This record gives sequence, structure tokens and C-alpha cells, in this order.
Amino acid sequence: MTMAKRDTYTPDSLLAVAVEVFIERGYDGTSMEHLSRAAGISKSSIYHHVRSKEELLRRAISRALDGLFGVLEEPGATGGRAIERLEYVTRRVAEVLLDELPYVTLLLRVRGNTDTERWAMERRREFDHRVAELLMEAAADGDLRPDVDIPLATRLLFGMINSIVEWYRPGRGTSRDEVAEAVVRTAFAGLRTS
Amino acid sequence: MTMAKRDTYTPDSLLAVAVEVFIERGYDGTSMEHLSRAAGISKSSIYHHVRSKEELLRRAISRALDGLFGVLEEPGATGGRAIERLEYVTRRVAEVLLDELPYVTLLLRVRGNTDTERWAMERRREFDHRVAELLMEAAADGDLRPDVDIPLATRLLFGMINSIVEWYRPGRGTSRDEVAEAVVRTAFAGLRTS
Repeated sequence: MTMAKRDTYTPDSLLAVAVEVFIERGYDGTSMEHLSRAAGISKSSIYHHVRSKEELLRRAISRALDGLFGVLEEPGATGGRAIERLEYVTRRVAEVLLDELPYVTLLLRVRGNTDTERWAMERRREFDHRVAELLMEAAADGDLRPDVDIPLATRLLFGMINSIVEWYRPGRGTSRDEVAEAVVRTAFAGLRTS
Repeated sequence: MTMAKRDTYTPDSLLAVAVEVFIERGYDGTSMEHLSRAAGISKSSIYHHVRSKEELLRRAISRALDGLFGVLEEPGATGGRAIERLEYVTRRVAEVLLDELPYVTLLLRVRGNTDTERWAMERRREFDHRVAELLMEAAADGDLRPDVDIPLATRLLFGMINSIVEWYRPGRGTSRDEVAEAVVRTAFAGLRTS
């Protein structure tokens, strides 16, 4: 048994530890005991910071969602032609995902067994819906290929963006900006020479 | 306790049951007891069909891999300009994924704790590498946008295709062919009017 270390955690630094454990073991598979061991502080020290495991999940997911919904309020997402706003949002969503990688990874993995998870899934659907609306506007402007099926295109677009959490490792090779740029170009211009 | 039913399973029908349980509980979280309950036959009946849980995993993953590697041997994948072969392979991989949905879902979820899982991951990398080679050939022919980063494009392409397992539910709305067509058009022509 290792000595418990002095509790010098801030809410953010404790959250960062919890999120790593949630991703590794799954939220359901994580106990307060696991969190205590990973943080190197006692369970009662953890309860000094948060009321429950679910509160940690809610904070982590809020951080991811705040980042994503924040994008929709930025000037690039609110002014200009729909296709430009759509490309802006796509790039920024990829950037937020890369900047908040563990938090967004957790958001994408929750499956809905608790109130917090159901809320997270509901907010994700809401976000997808806001992006689908942008696709509809761009289609109405004649800026999307006429054969684009909006719900399907929305899923494929997020499929491409969200897949980043499966393979991206910070500091190895490709930079955040290169990844975000590649997502935008692939999704909107396609890989083929036109 | 429910009565065990008579064992009328074929290797394929028992495999189908096992794969559903593996996807629901995770491979590590599945015991022979879980499989016995899901199949409605005794553990010894299951051992009459297979030597171990890992043999079921290997058979399931082989089925997915045989489908995927089979695509690379088809005439559309072996003759003609690289960009055409690449689009053909993309469409067919999406089709195989949809036709063999549970088997490919399982393949995409394994994480490498057993020899079979490590082998599956190795074969997946090999498959990705074969597709990356097609992208390189197409780039050399001048048929890909000059700014395409091959490893990154390969990941985004598979990210888009593989995301299908997260949302596609057979028989609801979009057909297999529509999904495969949308993947090819989005990836190669892009969403935007050119």
C-alpha cells in the first residue's frame, strides 16, 4: 500500500484524474475506490471535493458540452453564408475535440444508464440537430450537392470528426490544426481532384 | 431458472448469439455462463461446439476480416485506375460492414488483451495499410487533391466508414446502398457544390 499523498487537488485537477479513470475502466466499472487509488488520496478527501462519482461525470461532460455549444455562439458560426458557418463550426468542433480530448472522449462514450448520461445524450442530439439545421440552410442556398441526404450527411460528418478520439495522440506527428483542416477539406471538398 | 432448450445450433447460429452477447457485455465481461444463458443451452453443449470463448471470438472476427479482405480480391479492386479502385473498395467496405454489422462491430471494438485480439488489430492495421497504398497510387496519378495527407486521410476515411456501426439500425430508414453511396460521395466529392 502506498502512502496517501496530501490533498492538493483543485476541482479541475481532480476532475482530470477521474476522467482518465472513467475512460480506462468505463464509468460503470469505476468505483470511488478506483478514483481514490488513482488520485492517491483517501475516499473521504474525494468526498470533500464532490458529492458523488456522478457529479464528477456531470462536470466532465459539462466541460465538453460547454466547449462544443460555445462554438455555436462564436461570430464565425452566427454571421455569413450558411456553408461558411458550417465549415467554421466543423473546424471549431474538431479543434474543441482535440483541445478537450479526454472530456469529449468521455462524452462520446457514455451510453445512458444514469440521469447524467441520459442528459449528455440528449444534449449531443441537440448539438447534432443544430449542425443539421446549418446543413439544411446550406442546401437551401444551393451550396451543398443536390443529392446530399441531410440526416445521413450529419452522421457521416460527425462520424469523421468523432473518430479522431480513437486514434489521435497529442504530440505525435500531426498537429491539431492539420487534423482540423483535413476534416474540413475532406468533408466539404472531398479527397478527389475536382 | 428456464428449461434448457434442445441444442439445435449450427456453428453459425451459435456464433450469432455469442457475438450479440460480446457486443452487449464486452468480450472481457462475457463468461461461458452468460453465453449459456443467452443461447438457452448448457455450458457443456456449448463446449460440444467450441473449445473456448476465445474460439468464438476468433471465428467471429475471421468472418469480418474475410469479408473485408475479400473485397481487395474483387475485380473492381484489382483492375483500373487507382482512384476508381479506391472508390470501389470504399463502397464495398461500407457494404460489407452493413452486411456483417455485428461481426464488424465486434472487430472494431476489440482492444488487444488476448492473442486473438492482438491478431485482429494486426490484421486491421494491414487492411488500413492496403487502403493507404491505394490512396498513394491515386495521389501519384494526380487524382487526389495535392494537399491530401495520406495517413490522415486514411484515418478520416475509415473514421467515417466505421462510425456506421454506432448508428445504423437495419430496416429503419436509410438502406444499405444509400449509406454506401453517401460515404463514397462525401469522402471523394465532398458535401459542397463544386
